[in-house]
Amino acid sequence: MSLENLSINFATVRQAGTFAEIVDACLRHGITAISPWREHVNAAGIEEAARIVAANGLRVTGHCRGGFFPASDEAGRRAAIDDNRRAIDEAAALGASCLVMVVGGLPNGSRDLPGARQMVEDGLAEILPYARQRNVKLALEPLHPFYAAERACLNMLGQSLDLCDRLGEGTGVAIDVYHVWWDPDLEKQVARAGRNGQILAHHICDWLVPTTDPLNDRGMMGDGIVDLGRFRAMIEQAGFAGPQEVEIFSHRWQARPVDEVLATIVERYRTVCQPGAVAAAAA
Amino acid sequence: MSLENLSINFATVRQAGTFAEIVDACLRHGITAISPWREHVNAAGIEEAARIVAANGLRVTGHCRGGFFPASDEAGRRAAIDDNRRAIDEAAALGASCLVMVVGGLPNGSRDLPGARQMVEDGLAEILPYARQRNVKLALEPLHPFYAAERACLNMLGQSLDLCDRLGEGTGVAIDVYHVWWDPDLEKQVARAGRNGQILAHHICDWLVPTTDPLNDRGMMGDGIVDLGRFRAMIEQAGFAGPQEVEIFSHRWQARPVDEVLATIVERYRTVCQPGAVAAAAA
Repeated sequence: MSLENLSINFATVRQAGTFAEIVDACLRHGITAISPWREHVNAAGIEEAARIVAANGLRVTGHCRGGFFPASDEAGRRAAIDDNRRAIDEAAALGASCLVMVVGGLPNGSRDLPGARQMVEDGLAEILPYARQRNVKLALEPLHPFYAAERACLNMLGQSLDLCDRLGEGTGVAIDVYHVWWDPDLEKQVARAGRNGQILAHHICDWLVPTTDPLNDRGMMGDGIVDLGRFRAMIEQAGFAGPQEVEIFSHRWQARPVDEVLATIVERYRTVCQPGAVAAAAA
Repeated sequence: MSLENLSINFATVRQAGTFAEIVDACLRHGITAISPWREHVNAAGIEEAARIVAANGLRVTGHCRGGFFPASDEAGRRAAIDDNRRAIDEAAALGASCLVMVVGGLPNGSRDLPGARQMVEDGLAEILPYARQRNVKLALEPLHPFYAAERACLNMLGQSLDLCDRLGEGTGVAIDVYHVWWDPDLEKQVARAGRNGQILAHHICDWLVPTTDPLNDRGMMGDGIVDLGRFRAMIEQAGFAGPQEVEIFSHRWQARPVDEVLATIVERYRTVCQPGAVAAAAA
């Protein structure tokens, strides 16, 4: 099976080192699609990162990440806008399919969730013309409700698509199985996103039982309770045929040699992530 | 301010001891509404528990808990039905306003979430005639999506109300701020539940930032980021004027003397849980 539709998010293999070192590790395993984080890109320098991408014919399935709009004061909100413009520039330089937006949660000390959501919408509306100008699509990523206060007050796929509809062209969603697998309205909203061409990225990992740490205990595909074959079938049926991007925040996998992690990913991608795949029952 | 609309869920003051000891602790603080767990009731004996309730004129705002319908095999599902009938008997004996239903998650090793949800619906449909006969209302409690795999595959208020609509008379919801505060559709669904007389319980605590343990790090009202005054106003506006039931699963509060916990609850109930209350900004 070709690996052209397998992408590695750099968060999964942080231990490999620099931008160049992570790319080298991916190439060793036949993986040619990547999704870097800004810290890697900026440490390498954007020109050098873009050069590595071009020289190796890499596909950049997303740039991580823009967002974090809500802030306690106007200065904080302006700073976020400026930072998002820089992220758009980087995504453009890398030729990324999208800029992934983790929109931010409540400002420090705030209890005003509707207010934070409004700040998110206002911030996105403000950067969108620039993103369109640079031809960078904004991929709104609904995050699991566990992160609503601290990381993203966009928590449902339907909610995110409603926002995309209000914002218009140049926006879509990143659908990460970790965040949305439990959503009772999942099938309907995935179909809707596909129908409107709003699926910009498909992120995968697994949900472990038990999940001991909501931040850094994501599972390797096949080790948890998500039916990833069925999930992928649903995504493809909705019309998205792009890469599955592996994003595993995990203390466990971070502690293993990068080549072991990537070899495991390739094997699981082939065995449990394809439409129709039936994984062995979860442990 | 009268405390007649303040109820204590026994999980909050487990350290106080037995059913009788927890009731005594509540009464010391002027609290006359309770929500016991089955373990407390059964350790005391249902007749003795019912006697204590009657002798002290207590209001039982819920009996905790029925549910956990999904199971790997038919024997497991039958055992759950039988156990739920016993829980209904207990709720009837106590004169509880409702039996709280934590419906259960995926059966061991399963990745079939729609299947688990169907098992929940089938289980509820099976016990409902008995609950009606005993005049016990079933309060479906949507749990935070963090618990979808292990505790409850009902995760949204709207989803739970849809299920109530299908099941019909004798069902409703327990709305726990911890589980639903982040829901983008909250106001609409609370109003809908109220309109249809489906709000059976209102549980309170707070969401801490950070939440270090999704199971046992719930916050005391006022210590987190939920606008509890606004939340209560929304509930009352929807037509529910019943008690606020304090359910705080917390290693921190479990370690404190029960009288300190109850005194703090009474103070916070008065200062941050009333409609229009404005809590100091969250730390």
